[in-house]
Amino acid sequence: MKRMSPAAPHRPSTLPIINQRRLMRDLNAIGRIGIGNRGAVTRLVFSVKELRSRQVLIHLMRQAELKIHIDGIGNIFGRLDGSDPKAPAVLAGSHLDTVIHGGKYDGPVGVIGALEAIRTIRENRIATRSPLEVVCFVGEESSRFGFSTLGSSLVAGEVHPRDLANAVDAQGTKLADVLLSLGISPKRLRGLTRNPKSLKAYFELHIEQGPILEAIGKRIGLVTAIAAPSRFRIIFTGQADHSGTTPMEMRKDALVASAQLIEFIEKTCRKFSPMAKGRVVGTVGALKIEPGVINAVPGRAELSVDIRSTSAQSKARVSRMVTKQAQQIARKRAISVEVLTIREEDPVPLDKRLLRVTKEICDEKQVVYEIMPSGAGHDAMQMAKITPAAMIFIPSQRGISHNPLEWTDPDDIGLGTQLLMETMIRVANEQF
Amino acid sequence: MKRMSPAAPHRPSTLPIINQRRLMRDLNAIGRIGIGNRGAVTRLVFSVKELRSRQVLIHLMRQAELKIHIDGIGNIFGRLDGSDPKAPAVLAGSHLDTVIHGGKYDGPVGVIGALEAIRTIRENRIATRSPLEVVCFVGEESSRFGFSTLGSSLVAGEVHPRDLANAVDAQGTKLADVLLSLGISPKRLRGLTRNPKSLKAYFELHIEQGPILEAIGKRIGLVTAIAAPSRFRIIFTGQADHSGTTPMEMRKDALVASAQLIEFIEKTCRKFSPMAKGRVVGTVGALKIEPGVINAVPGRAELSVDIRSTSAQSKARVSRMVTKQAQQIARKRAISVEVLTIREEDPVPLDKRLLRVTKEICDEKQVVYEIMPSGAGHDAMQMAKITPAAMIFIPSQRGISHNPLEWTDPDDIGLGTQLLMETMIRVANEQF
Repeated sequence: MKRMSPAAPHRPSTLPIINQRRLMRDLNAIGRIGIGNRGAVTRLVFSVKELRSRQVLIHLMRQAELKIHIDGIGNIFGRLDGSDPKAPAVLAGSHLDTVIHGGKYDGPVGVIGALEAIRTIRENRIATRSPLEVVCFVGEESSRFGFSTLGSSLVAGEVHPRDLANAVDAQGTKLADVLLSLGISPKRLRGLTRNPKSLKAYFELHIEQGPILEAIGKRIGLVTAIAAPSRFRIIFTGQADHSGTTPMEMRKDALVASAQLIEFIEKTCRKFSPMAKGRVVGTVGALKIEPGVINAVPGRAELSVDIRSTSAQSKARVSRMVTKQAQQIARKRAISVEVLTIREEDPVPLDKRLLRVTKEICDEKQVVYEIMPSGAGHDAMQMAKITPAAMIFIPSQRGISHNPLEWTDPDDIGLGTQLLMETMIRVANEQF
Repeated sequence: MKRMSPAAPHRPSTLPIINQRRLMRDLNAIGRIGIGNRGAVTRLVFSVKELRSRQVLIHLMRQAELKIHIDGIGNIFGRLDGSDPKAPAVLAGSHLDTVIHGGKYDGPVGVIGALEAIRTIRENRIATRSPLEVVCFVGEESSRFGFSTLGSSLVAGEVHPRDLANAVDAQGTKLADVLLSLGISPKRLRGLTRNPKSLKAYFELHIEQGPILEAIGKRIGLVTAIAAPSRFRIIFTGQADHSGTTPMEMRKDALVASAQLIEFIEKTCRKFSPMAKGRVVGTVGALKIEPGVINAVPGRAELSVDIRSTSAQSKARVSRMVTKQAQQIARKRAISVEVLTIREEDPVPLDKRLLRVTKEICDEKQVVYEIMPSGAGHDAMQMAKITPAAMIFIPSQRGISHNPLEWTDPDDIGLGTQLLMETMIRVANEQF
């Protein structure tokens, strides 16, 4: 029984409730693939474990009677037809691959959540004008080959297959050889770009991977934009000296120079931390010093600096300030400094209209939400380049992610999935 | 022909000149033992190379017709009798062992210099009332077993052999087993302490291992005291977080806390840097952070802090200030800190009367000298506990030591040896 006429779409007065128990059962089934000590999950892209998780997903899609399509790189699409055969699809998904020793929710929540949304719609015979699709993108994490959002980049036409040719993993295995061993030839990768006309919207449900929602006691985050990193390697070169025999005033200590810069980065990013200034965050995550022994003044220090913002302007400004300060510190200390840009990406704004629809639904359901940026990168970042994209965040306990301790309350996963389903239905039926 | 009567010692009007060519020849012969790539010298204590260098020294002592005595641990003494068989000996020496990839002058200059001084005296038939002895101490460097001044500590009665029992090198070899394999039983180590009555003075000629003499253009340093280190391990524990998703104001960054402390240590030590304040130097030589990746806020940082001074009071004061500051930083950032004292040594003042004699001789010879502390530890530090001790420094090019680039001008080595010889003669003949 169709509840609404495909010719005159309207908002169904009552909507079904997703099956949270089934959702958690399938999430846990995926979570057991590649599980190791202390619950750590490792499913590196194209590993046996990761391929097995895809097999399980295909099985679940078949059970849900979705039409399955697997593209050249292995992205899996499961489709529920809409009433209008010509209408573009409303897509929702994420990824199943993980970092080394990760958790079970980063990625799978978005894939299994979208599957649960679509199968609930199918079971309850809710008709939508647009077809609905769940997608599992290949290789969102950069942990194995240094490439992030591999599958979605190819779908968005953002990566040329040639660029992938030289990627090598920690064991020295070439990505190209891995692909060939799976029967994927570079030629097949060319036609992966999806026609934007075939898409109406992309949704991604994801754990926040940060501490904000938990801290403010809200269960839903609606994402305005995805911050992009600028990454630098900054190398101070002073002189290694004996720690006992070199008077303070004759030292060229590369570590003290680094310390001054580290403090400056924190101070500056705090100034640019407010939402209006682009929520800049800056981190020195790695610091190597040489010779690195207790009885020697450090002669060389290498800092890895990561600056992110949803505002390209703020990010560029902070980056310039950091570079300038590094040079000033070096000049004052008569040492040398080298600033190498190793990555420079543009922040990606998400779709304002989709955000408004999600907000409306939250308001109707009296769900309290937070409008927020995403500090981490996601497949939505790529998909936003070819279709309107939106992200729904649910809380991460203590903000922990990429870690076996990653945890989200099943009720929050359920709420996020319900919200995803309702938004997909509305977007599939309404005009934009 | 004796130039002076042993019964009525007086200052010989003319003194012989040491043989700088022979001195450099023997120094270079020692320097070739254990030489490797780029001139790096490695003679770890009790290694085959180090034992070979001792064999060469014994050979040179025999050639010089000195009476050789080797004690239980392997310290080598070469003696030239004085005119008064009851008079205590004037001892001079240093060590032949090196760090890993060290230079050829740190240690050998003091041993071969003392040998050259004594053989010049013997050849020129200069009689002294007191006997003269050259000594090569075993294991001054801590590089292999973590113990520094091993041989001189035993001679000074400063180490109980039991304390050595558990020392292990990087290969897992126990010091006790090494000693047994060389035929040295712990029992033999007991009687090593030298009777202070048998000694009149100890001299040590050594490269500065610091940049001061070169910087001020002086060729001789006369040492007032040997600075001692206080060493701390300071551990900040905050929380590792995602560098993109954790707002600045919610971070517990252990590296930024460390940066503040590193700056404070430099600033404070600069205040205590003047000679009158004990020439304090403070160094953070090692810093380990976790997780230590570009996309994570460091949750843990471990700093190795080394604070040295010739003033026990200044050192204690700076150490207290650093500890207090570490706690304040942790409190302000709501993270935790642990301060572990891993070593706490007392500075060792050297003998004022010996310093005066050396000064007098420099003045007579119109040699420009610098009165200065020693920032590094030496065997003299131990010997000062049982006999008046003095050190003569010669310049280190660019202050570099413990490095293949270690270099001192042969003329400076010659000058230092000449000064050592003249001082030994005067002290051996005069009353103190």
